[in-house]
Amino acid sequence: MGAVKLINIKEEILAENKELAGEIRESLAAARVCLVNLMSSPGSGKTSLILKSLERLKDDHRISVIEGDIDSMVDAEAVAAQGVEAVQIKTGGFCHLNAAMVEKGLSQVDLTNLDLVFLENVGNLVCPAECDTGANLNVAILSVPEGDDKPLKYPLIFRTCDALVVNKVDCLDYFDFDREALVRRFRRLNEVAPLFEISCKTGQGIEEWCDWLENRLSVDR
Amino acid sequence: MGAVKLINIKEEILAENKELAGEIRESLAAARVCLVNLMSSPGSGKTSLILKSLERLKDDHRISVIEGDIDSMVDAEAVAAQGVEAVQIKTGGFCHLNAAMVEKGLSQVDLTNLDLVFLENVGNLVCPAECDTGANLNVAILSVPEGDDKPLKYPLIFRTCDALVVNKVDCLDYFDFDREALVRRFRRLNEVAPLFEISCKTGQGIEEWCDWLENRLSVDR
Repeated sequence: MGAVKLINIKEEILAENKELAGEIRESLAAARVCLVNLMSSPGSGKTSLILKSLERLKDDHRISVIEGDIDSMVDAEAVAAQGVEAVQIKTGGFCHLNAAMVEKGLSQVDLTNLDLVFLENVGNLVCPAECDTGANLNVAILSVPEGDDKPLKYPLIFRTCDALVVNKVDCLDYFDFDREALVRRFRRLNEVAPLFEISCKTGQGIEEWCDWLENRLSVDR
Repeated sequence: MGAVKLINIKEEILAENKELAGEIRESLAAARVCLVNLMSSPGSGKTSLILKSLERLKDDHRISVIEGDIDSMVDAEAVAAQGVEAVQIKTGGFCHLNAAMVEKGLSQVDLTNLDLVFLENVGNLVCPAECDTGANLNVAILSVPEGDDKPLKYPLIFRTCDALVVNKVDCLDYFDFDREALVRRFRRLNEVAPLFEISCKTGQGIEEWCDWLENRLSVDR
């Protein structure tokens, strides 16, 4: 009998991606830049969080934004309207950003002239969590209208994130969202990542989130 | 020079899936069962829509529900609590349901004794839209808190759905959601699918949605 050769496509792709992601982190370290990967469902507030964070941080830090979307430029345009450089990656159907796409995005900015790059991933609570983008910090956003049961259904992203941002807390009274249940479910998966309760609409919690991010900038760079 | 052989993994997988999906539709037609595939972001209200639809339809039609989740049984348990048979598929990380998973799910129900099967896909606005499950009707759900710009960013699911359900319209006043912009953006992608504005919380629009579904049951079976 001849030998059987197994080609495990997914594992090979992920291994290649991991290697490239490591190279991206080396480049970031050399340039002393922190790359923050924001992941969430569609409409949870990734762009809103970036815009709110820019307001608070852009005078003290040199920041660029890389926007990942299947289609459209609307998010990059919103960032540019704040006077901040934005790169739009159109994935053309691809459901998450991988290291190769992020490398292309980073090639469009001048890392030597930056402190912080926000990376807005494709709106998807599943696939982005599996794929290393080369980021230094991975942040998950959950919004109140999505419900407190999401850690039960999409455990990976909650298990692997470096911070969880719970957005739209201004409408906690309106939705049947059990904050304590959410925290309990999150803590079962992740004991260390901080949890920020924020509202991009009212500004609640933005200060604490930005303080943490500034602190991590000085640690991770 | 020797020949170059190209193996396009994604196309091959999708072609095999399409074939199996066709076989599923043949079995459904033979048994006169309509399979309705519900797709949306996490937390848009797929389970809630199923539960509301069961209340209205379960006395007049024989219904089962197949729940697809990466992890957890909570949705299937909620369906079973209504006295309706539920099959839970745990995808174990997989980001959408494919025809092979649906075939396994359907093998757990008695098609000869059913009129309608609801299939709840994994919460994901991207990947489920690419993968034929064998369903007769593909329904997309968008909830108001996600925003009116989603057709710009995730065009495929809006382009290919047989109906769009806009859920959580009870909180239209609370969110900055432009209904006319949503309709305009949807219609640019899809001229024919009906759009239902509903609230699973208040019951608004459930009657119209169920009437349409009942009508399609008699057409599609």
